[in-house]
Amino acid sequence: MSNAKRIPVGIVGASGYGGVQLVRLLQDHPLVNIAYLGGDSSAGKPFCSLYPHLNECVDLVIEPIDIDKIASKCQIVFLSLPNGLAYQMAPQLLEKGCKVLDLSADYRFSNLDIYKKWYGGERQDQAIAATAVYGLPELYRDRLSTAQLVGCAGCYVTASLLAIAPLLKQGLVVPDTAIIDAKSGTSGGGRQAKVNMLLAEADSSIGAYSVGGHHRHTPEIEEICSELAGHDILVQFTPHLMPMVRGILATVYATLRDPGLVREDLITIYKAFYRNSPLVKILPGGTYPQTKWACGTNLCYLGIEVDQRTGRVIVMSAIDNLIKGQAGQGVQCMNIMMGWEETLGLPQLCFYP
Amino acid sequence: MSNAKRIPVGIVGASGYGGVQLVRLLQDHPLVNIAYLGGDSSAGKPFCSLYPHLNECVDLVIEPIDIDKIASKCQIVFLSLPNGLAYQMAPQLLEKGCKVLDLSADYRFSNLDIYKKWYGGERQDQAIAATAVYGLPELYRDRLSTAQLVGCAGCYVTASLLAIAPLLKQGLVVPDTAIIDAKSGTSGGGRQAKVNMLLAEADSSIGAYSVGGHHRHTPEIEEICSELAGHDILVQFTPHLMPMVRGILATVYATLRDPGLVREDLITIYKAFYRNSPLVKILPGGTYPQTKWACGTNLCYLGIEVDQRTGRVIVMSAIDNLIKGQAGQGVQCMNIMMGWEETLGLPQLCFYP
Amino acid sequence: MSNAKRIPVGIVGASGYGGVQLVRLLQDHPLVNIAYLGGDSSAGKPFCSLYPHLNECVDLVIEPIDIDKIASKCQIVFLSLPNGLAYQMAPQLLEKGCKVLDLSADYRFSNLDIYKKWYGGERQDQAIAATAVYGLPELYRDRLSTAQLVGCAGCYVTASLLAIAPLLKQGLVVPDTAIIDAKSGTSGGGRQAKVNMLLAEADSSIGAYSVGGHHRHTPEIEEICSELAGHDILVQFTPHLMPMVRGILATVYATLRDPGLVREDLITIYKAFYRNSPLVKILPGGTYPQTKWACGTNLCYLGIEVDQRTGRVIVMSAIDNLIKGQAGQGVQCMNIMMGWEETLGLPQLCFYP
Amino acid sequence: MSNAKRIPVGIVGASGYGGVQLVRLLQDHPLVNIAYLGGDSSAGKPFCSLYPHLNECVDLVIEPIDIDKIASKCQIVFLSLPNGLAYQMAPQLLEKGCKVLDLSADYRFSNLDIYKKWYGGERQDQAIAATAVYGLPELYRDRLSTAQLVGCAGCYVTASLLAIAPLLKQGLVVPDTAIIDAKSGTSGGGRQAKVNMLLAEADSSIGAYSVGGHHRHTPEIEEICSELAGHDILVQFTPHLMPMVRGILATVYATLRDPGLVREDLITIYKAFYRNSPLVKILPGGTYPQTKWACGTNLCYLGIEVDQRTGRVIVMSAIDNLIKGQAGQGVQCMNIMMGWEETLGLPQLCFYP
Repeated sequence: MSNAKRIPVGIVGASGYGGVQLVRLLQDHPLVNIAYLGGDSSAGKPFCSLYPHLNECVDLVIEPIDIDKIASKCQIVFLSLPNGLAYQMAPQLLEKGCKVLDLSADYRFSNLDIYKKWYGGERQDQAIAATAVYGLPELYRDRLSTAQLVGCAGCYVTASLLAIAPLLKQGLVVPDTAIIDAKSGTSGGGRQAKVNMLLAEADSSIGAYSVGGHHRHTPEIEEICSELAGHDILVQFTPHLMPMVRGILATVYATLRDPGLVREDLITIYKAFYRNSPLVKILPGGTYPQTKWACGTNLCYLGIEVDQRTGRVIVMSAIDNLIKGQAGQGVQCMNIMMGWEETLGLPQLCFYP
Repeated sequence: MSNAKRIPVGIVGASGYGGVQLVRLLQDHPLVNIAYLGGDSSAGKPFCSLYPHLNECVDLVIEPIDIDKIASKCQIVFLSLPNGLAYQMAPQLLEKGCKVLDLSADYRFSNLDIYKKWYGGERQDQAIAATAVYGLPELYRDRLSTAQLVGCAGCYVTASLLAIAPLLKQGLVVPDTAIIDAKSGTSGGGRQAKVNMLLAEADSSIGAYSVGGHHRHTPEIEEICSELAGHDILVQFTPHLMPMVRGILATVYATLRDPGLVREDLITIYKAFYRNSPLVKILPGGTYPQTKWACGTNLCYLGIEVDQRTGRVIVMSAIDNLIKGQAGQGVQCMNIMMGWEETLGLPQLCFYP
Repeated sequence: MSNAKRIPVGIVGASGYGGVQLVRLLQDHPLVNIAYLGGDSSAGKPFCSLYPHLNECVDLVIEPIDIDKIASKCQIVFLSLPNGLAYQMAPQLLEKGCKVLDLSADYRFSNLDIYKKWYGGERQDQAIAATAVYGLPELYRDRLSTAQLVGCAGCYVTASLLAIAPLLKQGLVVPDTAIIDAKSGTSGGGRQAKVNMLLAEADSSIGAYSVGGHHRHTPEIEEICSELAGHDILVQFTPHLMPMVRGILATVYATLRDPGLVREDLITIYKAFYRNSPLVKILPGGTYPQTKWACGTNLCYLGIEVDQRTGRVIVMSAIDNLIKGQAGQGVQCMNIMMGWEETLGLPQLCFYP
Repeated sequence: MSNAKRIPVGIVGASGYGGVQLVRLLQDHPLVNIAYLGGDSSAGKPFCSLYPHLNECVDLVIEPIDIDKIASKCQIVFLSLPNGLAYQMAPQLLEKGCKVLDLSADYRFSNLDIYKKWYGGERQDQAIAATAVYGLPELYRDRLSTAQLVGCAGCYVTASLLAIAPLLKQGLVVPDTAIIDAKSGTSGGGRQAKVNMLLAEADSSIGAYSVGGHHRHTPEIEEICSELAGHDILVQFTPHLMPMVRGILATVYATLRDPGLVREDLITIYKAFYRNSPLVKILPGGTYPQTKWACGTNLCYLGIEVDQRTGRVIVMSAIDNLIKGQAGQGVQCMNIMMGWEETLGLPQLCFYP
């Protein structure tokens, strides 16, 4: 398609890992073209000066952040900024007619009190925040199709919710027995220089962090779980850092209400639940996902097991934290908002190994 | 000490990772000397032909396995063989007066029916098996001090039990709520060539295996847990493979009976429980273990957290799977059997990073 | 394009890493469809039983190897087999009108004596071998455009030759001063279970192998270098194994004939040499390639430096050993053989990081 | 030995990787005790607050840097500081009677002009610098035995010089043909937070840096090489970053003067050259070192090969960059300065794998 007919999109905050994935995906997307890349700290620089491998491949210059200019150039705007910035920018973009997809936490909470408790700030924009749709297409596809503002789901949350949603939605498990033991590659920490994220520190080692419900993704998971279940749900969420770049595996444990359910029952239930979700792959019985299978793709692989001795279901969920857990999810949401095929421009096969 | 006064020890099955750790540790041990290295497939070869870095460092030749010869040369014998071989060899060594430490599963079960269910075989040696002491010094120090035959604890089991023992022993948690999400480096799979253990397959990826209680360490954990608790305990144990060589992290979840207990209470209880265990390190509140801290040492690091919202305790346990989880544990057991200081010859500080 | 109009291609030997990359690339290629997957040891199995992540994504069954059947189904056949098998199969496929691309070493040597010296065997097929075109499009694009039989270049060789070709072709360096210090991820060793390729052995370590000209890629490099230079060339080639899955970096050293040449001269020369090669990226002065930039793509990144003190040029070349070094190269050759755009169906942007 | 009889040593700059290795090694050394740990930015903190795994293991508090206090407490002082600080501190320590071992570059150059060219600064201390002995025991053992001030060799330099010294000292190779292709783990970059050292950036990738003689270790290598050869020597030194924590492999190429020399000749020459160097291990013909073999030890493994076709010798040298390349080298130098056994307190066997 000629560029003239493509929909112009913009990316604000393109210098981080989320940004570079977005550039990569949108550049290959058949129905859009990148009309604007914005960032304050790198304004004026060619994008490829941040990522030299894009030299001769991506020919975009980072521009200063100017709402009027963005709105005049773009129909769709992705915000890929640190938490707390998007809500200062999105309202004006919306007013000027842009569709906005935010990759930060700013629009993930329907209740701003929870947001403020975990992320701070003095937000007064409850009215606008209430119009935001939660950007997890497998659960909110319908609402996304008419959304103007989307708060894309977090990486750990995506892996966790896709694993647990069918159980909660259908009341299959005992409330509050859910334990999510999640493992992530270090790219989830972004492109900031931090000592604990150095290869010398993080390689050849694993450890948990934010243990005991102290991770910001806990309230996000609980909000959606509660909505799915129809009542308040507490989950035990423990993130771990893995010695690898990409990928999240969430191992989810919950006690079945009906101890007579067997693995094949659950697989059937999951297949039905996700029958319209082409990017969720339910593995055959006895096969458990490797994060590597999802890397470089927008897929979520789910493996399901039942332990009849203990009465528990164990669901393992693997995604690429930077694609399905971030940029690819944004593109998938965009596709739905625009009425396009959901999988458009989204890679579905990893390069194994 | 001159070699003449050192106690002569032998290692049967020296070619694997357990064997090479044993050689490394026993060669540096101040009170023993390696009098015999045995193995059938490599008999006649210098040990350093298997591990060229030991050239000029270890001057031992692998000998054929001959019980009489072993017994005539050694007071203490380590068996580091595939499951199912030790129980064909240990009785004769015991009869000839050797102390025997087995690193396989053969002597870990007081009930041979459980052994046979998980490992197969037609063992009839219940009487001898009943004399074996379970080789986890922190829990069975007293029995070890008079043992002639020791079945050293498995690697996952060591990490899991050290994390959970104080909770069960003192009845602090609701029975059967224990979930052990364990993560191991690939060296736990031994030095056998298997496709799924290739770097090309296992690097940059994580995944679970033997999910749903299907791992052989499940019955071993449950047997000891049940003994600690005084009644039958079921645990949910899920092993995961990590893209690294060494180290196990077990993240253990359980529901507290008394929801009023706080983290500092638990830390106090753990410190008391392990006050005579110099190789278990209870971390301060808010500090969680990295497996790297334990690598190359015989230590177990424990981090403890309580989630008051959910009423759960979360204990994280980090060990080196080949030292505290295998060869070093054997040496620690030997020290106790011989009435020596428990920590003799055992490294306690990692080379960080 | 409807499958009916696509060109049917076959892959013989689809179970290895080369095969799975081919499947991945050809499945996404706009002008072909995979009409046949063949393999003897896995005949009858669905391809996704070898690679469970392809479940529901790739719907092909591995068929027994039957030349008549292959030829009846396919216009183009990729052979992805161990060395020594392709030359027993290719002649019949050619005779039946197929175009053949071999990923093994069988058709890389115009002189079969060299082949036999390094690979053994009793080949008598000099006449057919002489018709094979060397499958490195950047150097043999013209010949490839009319080829029926292609011996695709090896992985190390591709990285090495793309780095050194402009120097030799234009007589810029002193003959026989070329030293190629090459570093490869372990996937280059294939999907065979070998102890030295276990993660437990190969991770967190580096080492050289086949030192002193003993690697089979040495004669292959020398044959093409000699052809480029117009006289016999000896190179010093040393491969090293790296603790990572994919990627080759070749660091090439050579003494300049003209010590007055500066880096920018060389960059200009390289850009000219590769001006019609869209998949070779010459980096700006002072930028040196990371293998990661090439991973998942069919690109070769070249970084060029001159040390005026020593009079040497240093060229660094980064590729993905399984794409540009194997399967992608095959697809690129196919595109040229078919008169299609050279880059068709070939990924050009990595997912960084 | 009781602490009262041990020699008191101090470490200035204990917070980095060099510092933590020194603490580890000196704490286990039988003849010294750590009497002082100093650092400005962390003064007042327990050392284990920087490295939580040392909690209960190392009971030292970091003190402010006060020369008088250091000198009153310590007979031996290790300086483990950024370049440019040691030369402002060492003279006073020497004057007060301390022996000083500097791990930075400050005292590695007998010619301060070279130092100033590469490291900057306005040093006027040529007289004191001239008394410093270069801290590479295998080459300067005699001078070290009477040294008061030692400038310990850099990590790359140690690996490179141990590989090349016998060739240059005995005039076996053509001057200026030496090419050193060096590969290092990322811990060589220290514990500073830098984006390019993040696991997300540096894992699963390799690349060269400071290509073309631009690395600061080039003049250091050339100075010692020139002294060994008796005339000025230029070397081509290219460092590469590897996706691993520890270890350096230097692959050294040089053209033999006498093309008749074979591998076994060279091995004999190397064994003779290092016959009094217990920490250098010459590998048998056909065995090439893995960096992993050296990790956690103060050893250097050398593998030697000759390519008769090209007339070159290839020497591969593997060390642990933080032990033999830094802290362990300091301890080895200290042992010699104190007239103790050279290997005292230095680990010689890695924990493989």
